[in-house]
Amino acid sequence: MIDLRSDTLTRPTDAMREAMARAEVGDDVYGEDPTVTALEERVAQMFGHEAALFTPTGSMANVLAVASVVAPGQEVLCESSAHIARAELGAHGAITGLTMRTWTAPRGQVDLAAIEAMHAPDMGPFFVRTAAVSVENTHNFAGGAVLPLDDLAALRAWADTTGTRLHLDGARLWNAHVATGTPLADYGRIADVMAVCLSKGLGAPVGSLMVGSADAVAEARVRRKRMGGGMRQVGILAAAGAYALDHHVERLAEDHEHARLLGEALGLDPADVDTNIVVVERPDAQAFVSAAADQGVRIAAVGPRTVRLVTHLDVSRTDAERAAGVLASLA
Amino acid sequence: MIDLRSDTLTRPTDAMREAMARAEVGDDVYGEDPTVTALEERVAQMFGHEAALFTPTGSMANVLAVASVVAPGQEVLCESSAHIARAELGAHGAITGLTMRTWTAPRGQVDLAAIEAMHAPDMGPFFVRTAAVSVENTHNFAGGAVLPLDDLAALRAWADTTGTRLHLDGARLWNAHVATGTPLADYGRIADVMAVCLSKGLGAPVGSLMVGSADAVAEARVRRKRMGGGMRQVGILAAAGAYALDHHVERLAEDHEHARLLGEALGLDPADVDTNIVVVERPDAQAFVSAAADQGVRIAAVGPRTVRLVTHLDVSRTDAERAAGVLASLA
Amino acid sequence: MIDLRSDTLTRPTDAMREAMARAEVGDDVYGEDPTVTALEERVAQMFGHEAALFTPTGSMANVLAVASVVAPGQEVLCESSAHIARAELGAHGAITGLTMRTWTAPRGQVDLAAIEAMHAPDMGPFFVRTAAVSVENTHNFAGGAVLPLDDLAALRAWADTTGTRLHLDGARLWNAHVATGTPLADYGRIADVMAVCLSKGLGAPVGSLMVGSADAVAEARVRRKRMGGGMRQVGILAAAGAYALDHHVERLAEDHEHARLLGEALGLDPADVDTNIVVVERPDAQAFVSAAADQGVRIAAVGPRTVRLVTHLDVSRTDAERAAGVLASLA
Amino acid sequence: MIDLRSDTLTRPTDAMREAMARAEVGDDVYGEDPTVTALEERVAQMFGHEAALFTPTGSMANVLAVASVVAPGQEVLCESSAHIARAELGAHGAITGLTMRTWTAPRGQVDLAAIEAMHAPDMGPFFVRTAAVSVENTHNFAGGAVLPLDDLAALRAWADTTGTRLHLDGARLWNAHVATGTPLADYGRIADVMAVCLSKGLGAPVGSLMVGSADAVAEARVRRKRMGGGMRQVGILAAAGAYALDHHVERLAEDHEHARLLGEALGLDPADVDTNIVVVERPDAQAFVSAAADQGVRIAAVGPRTVRLVTHLDVSRTDAERAAGVLASLA
Repeated sequence: MIDLRSDTLTRPTDAMREAMARAEVGDDVYGEDPTVTALEERVAQMFGHEAALFTPTGSMANVLAVASVVAPGQEVLCESSAHIARAELGAHGAITGLTMRTWTAPRGQVDLAAIEAMHAPDMGPFFVRTAAVSVENTHNFAGGAVLPLDDLAALRAWADTTGTRLHLDGARLWNAHVATGTPLADYGRIADVMAVCLSKGLGAPVGSLMVGSADAVAEARVRRKRMGGGMRQVGILAAAGAYALDHHVERLAEDHEHARLLGEALGLDPADVDTNIVVVERPDAQAFVSAAADQGVRIAAVGPRTVRLVTHLDVSRTDAERAAGVLASLA
Repeated sequence: MIDLRSDTLTRPTDAMREAMARAEVGDDVYGEDPTVTALEERVAQMFGHEAALFTPTGSMANVLAVASVVAPGQEVLCESSAHIARAELGAHGAITGLTMRTWTAPRGQVDLAAIEAMHAPDMGPFFVRTAAVSVENTHNFAGGAVLPLDDLAALRAWADTTGTRLHLDGARLWNAHVATGTPLADYGRIADVMAVCLSKGLGAPVGSLMVGSADAVAEARVRRKRMGGGMRQVGILAAAGAYALDHHVERLAEDHEHARLLGEALGLDPADVDTNIVVVERPDAQAFVSAAADQGVRIAAVGPRTVRLVTHLDVSRTDAERAAGVLASLA
Repeated sequence: MIDLRSDTLTRPTDAMREAMARAEVGDDVYGEDPTVTALEERVAQMFGHEAALFTPTGSMANVLAVASVVAPGQEVLCESSAHIARAELGAHGAITGLTMRTWTAPRGQVDLAAIEAMHAPDMGPFFVRTAAVSVENTHNFAGGAVLPLDDLAALRAWADTTGTRLHLDGARLWNAHVATGTPLADYGRIADVMAVCLSKGLGAPVGSLMVGSADAVAEARVRRKRMGGGMRQVGILAAAGAYALDHHVERLAEDHEHARLLGEALGLDPADVDTNIVVVERPDAQAFVSAAADQGVRIAAVGPRTVRLVTHLDVSRTDAERAAGVLASLA
Repeated sequence: MIDLRSDTLTRPTDAMREAMARAEVGDDVYGEDPTVTALEERVAQMFGHEAALFTPTGSMANVLAVASVVAPGQEVLCESSAHIARAELGAHGAITGLTMRTWTAPRGQVDLAAIEAMHAPDMGPFFVRTAAVSVENTHNFAGGAVLPLDDLAALRAWADTTGTRLHLDGARLWNAHVATGTPLADYGRIADVMAVCLSKGLGAPVGSLMVGSADAVAEARVRRKRMGGGMRQVGILAAAGAYALDHHVERLAEDHEHARLLGEALGLDPADVDTNIVVVERPDAQAFVSAAADQGVRIAAVGPRTVRLVTHLDVSRTDAERAAGVLASLA
């Protein structure tokens, strides 16, 4: 089986397992796990932010990050197929109590005109106020699309003039970085608060980080404990993340190449495959998924007529070529 | 001063006050207020639904109505300037815990293609599910725009095929009814659950109703009490509502005519003023509001560049003509 | 039928109805209803506080009051049969998101030793912090018991040394005031924030007030709107409240006398009937309630083995004597 | 430094690390991690329940477990120093939206008379209903006290007659099992739903389990994802838990013996030290903690006048004896 359902499926390599087994640990609820602390400092620095916080999942990192800039009863604007809107089981409403409005753009892009039109400043205690805009880079359900830095910079400039905060869902920001060569700090500069994930393309088994100001992270640390995310000797997991940052970032270029192969097999323009995700429309997504599985290729339905393929650490060049053959024959 | 800020400003007439003073009352928390019960039954019947529930505000009626079809963690889709999105202080997220995604359409219309594209069926326990679509008729921030019955019927048909529920925010549905001649029951037929308001154009001092199935209303009765809306001898208020239904529905046609006068004065095409609300863009909404106030006409800023005028029971033909003169001179 | 189920059952008198019919009103969401504003100022002054806020129910007044001193995730301590714990359908947890711990005391009294033992100061971000203590005076489910001012003063002194806030649920504080002669301002002095009700013994059809600092009330005004309690021409209701304050406070002494009659008939020591509520244990509360109803006396089961009787404006001396006769024959 | 602040401080042993490094893993969000699945099945069977769910923390396991038996607006009763009341940052109110009332008992014991007196059956839509009682065994803040099986059985019998559900916070149930010889299944039998922890006395770095019916666990799986607890290749952590169950249960007897040494040094009756926790009152807890730290013994203040010591895997007999000497000299 070649498994292209998600890059969350990656299993730790032997070297990563060894790094985990050797990790120095402590009780992180007490702030005493040196491996976690080092990772948090390292990731904060990578993005030019003051602090970071390790979380068990990307969902929790996003919930904590958005909650640090949007109070209950305020709103965040995002693209309508954003992960925070579609795929975190409604935690932002159900746990944080915020409101969401959405714009829709091809390939999940920033649409500044739409954002400006929707933006609600503080008009007194009758109206919901737009506290933040959230962007996702790369954009998962838009097929791993990269948001161009210029668009993000324009959004940042607009945000500064309106007092709006920016949240960057960077679960796959590493992919955008590798695909475009944009320095991570440049991405960090446009965000007030962000989330990055170690357990998708980077191949760590578990773990994400929320990144932001020291104050936001201190407050998120309390919320993380309330949400049940205050783990103990979690340096075991942080060690995998540190290993991934050392060894698995640059290799994402291979995943991108494999994804382009798959995209071509499905009739996509290679220019539409920015990174490691391929999203295609099929009349019956479930039927296509089943047909592929019958030939040894597992892919995912992410909508009734939408199929997603994701390349990752556990998909070799040979796997990608074989999968491309299968998919081409089905398409 | 001619006050065009909102149709919520209407004061009860002498005849309405007399009806209130004479109302037979009981403890409605115990279900023993005959005037409330009669009003609830009357309004339910008007729309062809099983039951209705009196609430202190339109916001509470909407929160109860939407919560009856959308569970915490599920989503409702609505137009991006809907009252439930912009003007209820985020209660749907903060109290109900639901998630919202939005489409944007000129004059707040139904965009079935956008709804279909956003609709998320139950794809397993990873994704937020679209439980309901909410429409607002007439649409407040879109300038009192009427949603054509054909569009609503098409939405209803689509909803039936997808198992989606429909919420109708009918705070000003009476205006749509009078403007188009569409029977109220025809509107009721397209909605699983709805909210209507007595205290806007109809001129009652306080009160709205949530309308739906007997089960939904029974559940909403409990939620209403939890939200602090279980009032006692509320027949006093219900009597005003009943009076308004008897005497203040047909006269909304006058408000509509007055609004067209105002719209013309502001350079709008009269065809763009469907009912009793006029929304116009001005470069600086606050400045325009102040200038009008200086000449004895109070209007409202509902966005940094958006001004709203509303005609109602306490605005006479003479008032409307005078206000039109003032506004024309400013525009 | 003599109805002793609750003092919420009172119907407005003719004079009160006339006051309501004549009330000057405006749109209170815009802060423009002069009758509401006057009532809010009057009630704030009665208790020596800065501000007050009219609410549709005592439940909403309590939720707003407690939320102004207890943040989500913090706790309030109260007696285990307090109205905020047992009878507001869990709104403090479900809407505010706070935590509650309880002590149990005979007749719902303040137990300072228990409070001190439970009190959790800020011990760092692992523990829930005790933000406030709530007391109820008179105490409904404890049979209308008065909390002695000395006990409240001792609690206030302790609260000051520990930085704890005090909430006073004063739904029936008027009864305590009349029964003991304690000035209202003395009660106001012990509370950081409080709620009082116009629609129980005072006989207004609808309405309560949250009372506290200007800041707390300003914040509560926003929360009230989010909860759906921002009503419009609510001066109609406030006028009833003002009338009740003018005419129905001192007469509560009659209700207290009637309650003592009923208590004696049920074998209680008259010293155990402080105000207008009588609570007695019966082996089968429902059966006792039914038997009384068969003889024309309606009372309430408030627990499987607990029966409650409440005297009020609509229960005359003759009614009370007749009900006492019926209950004595059943007991 | 001898660290007695908590048994959460334990670090994985070399053998445990090796088990983790070798663990077979998969994506547990898709239900494909064989090590997690095996652990969940094993733990469910140990307690005679249908299913179990791995969680990142004991707090999350408790929140999921309680939420499976108590709906928003309903209440759970527990002892006033229970971990769910004092130490989970109010998550049960803030996230689940439930209400809590508490009894207080020496050593955190079950007080069935108090529970019966507080119990609120379904009395109609005005009152909060008691949905569940929660007990904690061993009871952390009561000094690791064991709840006798007879008391739990009596509570179970009462719960069956009243339709009340029972939640068992078994974070340290292994200690009760070892201290009393009570079979784990006997504990499982009294609970509708429970939580057990691998990362306290058992020495795993991270991980707890919620245990209950198949339906409750399926629903909790969705809630876990919403709370951000849906981790991926979490078999790494589950392997540590499985190792701990194989090797670290019986040795808890040593921790108990060490705790008795410490209790005696602090002047406690050894009969009051049931397991691995010693709680003592000191006039100034912080000062005592500091004095001990100065002599190389770290202990914790869990209240302004309450000090807690916990023995665990990383405290040897020699450590315990040395700490006892230091504490005896300070006491």
